[in-house]
Amino acid sequence: MTNPPFKFQIEARQDRARAGKFFTPHGDLETPVFAPVGTQATVKSLTPDQLAEIGSSLILANTYHLHLRPGDELIKEMGGLHKFMHWSAPILTDSGGFQVFSLAKNRRIDQDGVTFRSHIDGSKQRLDPEKSISIQENLGADIIMAFDECSDPYDKEYVREAMLRTHSWAERCQQAKTRSDQALFGIVQGGISEDLRQESAGYIANLDFPGNAIGGLSVGETKSEMHTILDLVDRVLPEDKPRYLMGVGTPEDLVNGVSRGVDIFDCVLPTRLARHNAAMTRFGARLNIVNAQYARDEQPLDQQCTCYTCQNFSRAYIRHLIISKEMLAATLLSIHNLHTLIDLTHDMRQSILAGQFEDFANHFHQVRAEIEFSKASN
Amino acid sequence: MTNPPFKFQIEARQDRARAGKFFTPHGDLETPVFAPVGTQATVKSLTPDQLAEIGSSLILANTYHLHLRPGDELIKEMGGLHKFMHWSAPILTDSGGFQVFSLAKNRRIDQDGVTFRSHIDGSKQRLDPEKSISIQENLGADIIMAFDECSDPYDKEYVREAMLRTHSWAERCQQAKTRSDQALFGIVQGGISEDLRQESAGYIANLDFPGNAIGGLSVGETKSEMHTILDLVDRVLPEDKPRYLMGVGTPEDLVNGVSRGVDIFDCVLPTRLARHNAAMTRFGARLNIVNAQYARDEQPLDQQCTCYTCQNFSRAYIRHLIISKEMLAATLLSIHNLHTLIDLTHDMRQSILAGQFEDFANHFHQVRAEIEFSKASN
Repeated sequence: MTNPPFKFQIEARQDRARAGKFFTPHGDLETPVFAPVGTQATVKSLTPDQLAEIGSSLILANTYHLHLRPGDELIKEMGGLHKFMHWSAPILTDSGGFQVFSLAKNRRIDQDGVTFRSHIDGSKQRLDPEKSISIQENLGADIIMAFDECSDPYDKEYVREAMLRTHSWAERCQQAKTRSDQALFGIVQGGISEDLRQESAGYIANLDFPGNAIGGLSVGETKSEMHTILDLVDRVLPEDKPRYLMGVGTPEDLVNGVSRGVDIFDCVLPTRLARHNAAMTRFGARLNIVNAQYARDEQPLDQQCTCYTCQNFSRAYIRHLIISKEMLAATLLSIHNLHTLIDLTHDMRQSILAGQFEDFANHFHQVRAEIEFSKASN
Repeated sequence: MTNPPFKFQIEARQDRARAGKFFTPHGDLETPVFAPVGTQATVKSLTPDQLAEIGSSLILANTYHLHLRPGDELIKEMGGLHKFMHWSAPILTDSGGFQVFSLAKNRRIDQDGVTFRSHIDGSKQRLDPEKSISIQENLGADIIMAFDECSDPYDKEYVREAMLRTHSWAERCQQAKTRSDQALFGIVQGGISEDLRQESAGYIANLDFPGNAIGGLSVGETKSEMHTILDLVDRVLPEDKPRYLMGVGTPEDLVNGVSRGVDIFDCVLPTRLARHNAAMTRFGARLNIVNAQYARDEQPLDQQCTCYTCQNFSRAYIRHLIISKEMLAATLLSIHNLHTLIDLTHDMRQSILAGQFEDFANHFHQVRAEIEFSKASN
């Protein structure tokens, strides 16, 4: 069932890390890639031009939010999501599942789908595999996701039930799909249970999607549990399809993900931290720029960084903007934080192409360890 | 006392309208010019790059706000306002007077200056001519303003007292000034009283500032009163110095100002309207984009407009951003509103240079009248 336009070409490998190209109707996506999140058809505080200048090549938008507001049919009428938000490069939409299951008490799951109440107006809503695909077809992203159920990773009985529903829903999504210009990705679930992950990865691999996602991680498990699952799934999923690790976005997680065969990442972390006054750095340190120590600090957020913010503004200025409650603070911090992750994935790609990824990853972990050590000794 | 570097060269005149160039240490300012307001060292929601792309050549920053936060001494330490906010073109700072006098019950005026309480922390503060100049020298703008008192235009006795203080303070500002790379402008006061305005314009003209401002307008008087005062002041102020009409910023006021010999304008209106969801148009109409009628409107805010917002986004999208409380709404509307005024002043300049300003102004007033008529007949 793989859709021919969505070929994935692996340009170079080093151990399990890969540099590739995924061909989409809105351009070739170079991997590894980090996708900024534009929940409501906007990456908060940034124009599409600013996003492009940062180096973004893929963005994610949320099916749940856009279905409720402004409505996927309105977006279809306006020419689809690319035109609506003026983003001409690839877009990925999630299935809405993660948001709906996050509603906790305001949703009821059955074998067929989920009934829930809107967080906006409390109205009763229904989402199931067919509806999720229909919404995503109206939105018109290049990569769309199968409707899945993400469960608490430590409740194995529930993890199993959710996984089985996810498998049956994955097939229903394949059948419901009508557009040939969208790549539907399947999602592996199974929590932190190795046997369930093994089963799920095998089941999803067998459905022959043009790409596969690893869901249900970065939801409370330990780093070591995450790595075990990534190692396991990497051995089962087909190598010639892109792998997307959902909702993951610290520098450390990106390097560990790429080391374990992951190609695509997304996360709200960089823009959310920006709105909470925190600057990310290449090796995972975070600066709370509102601290008094930065009041007269002429340095950029990160001296190594080549982003617009770091090339032109001091910590003192950004701190002033935050304290004065100026919107530009979130914009400048978002530019920097997103650039940090996008630049990191770009450098990983280059190092894989140059056959130097092992050195790159070793160096990364070494500097990180030194930073952790120096924090602990202070 | 005119400072030689701050020459004003008039390139063309038509009737009383002028196209000129004012030479500053940060570049030649082409007039007529509209200055966006960056109260706290940022034009709200925009990066300096976006401001430059809109065509901004001069921006205004507020002495009162920056003195209180982050402090003018801190800004001086950080290399001055241009470097601090990353704006390499000309900057104008006001004197702080207007803000202090707006504090109403929280300030006490004497012949020497004003004692007031900070709107941020209630602390007791003092501003007088010498202090205002000292702050403005720390900030380091290209154009700085004499400390003046703006009064209720209908209380003639108070207007007279405030005008006399403004005159004495103007001289004290000239004496206090130490930097030769800043142009100090005098300010004409006198409310809506023709004899007081005559007296004030004569007094200020006589002090031979490199530029002169007209204060105390657009504060509640009628349009006809404003025009009478502008006509009168135009006849008294020296022709070979730039004239700055403070705090004025509707399209209609800009055209009427240029027709009466004004060269420089500033106003918070375009960015304030943007944050209240209103789009300005060339001829003064305003669209409240949150209205339901725009929900599926694929048109740009203004079909004639060439700004980034109008080239790339629909009313439907901007309405969605507003309803979803997304910051990008204010950014896109600010870009459009500022571009509308800057483009208008640019077109006025071109029409003066081409000897066609009379036609330009007539056409402008005719279209405006048609819009008003069509609104009234609806």
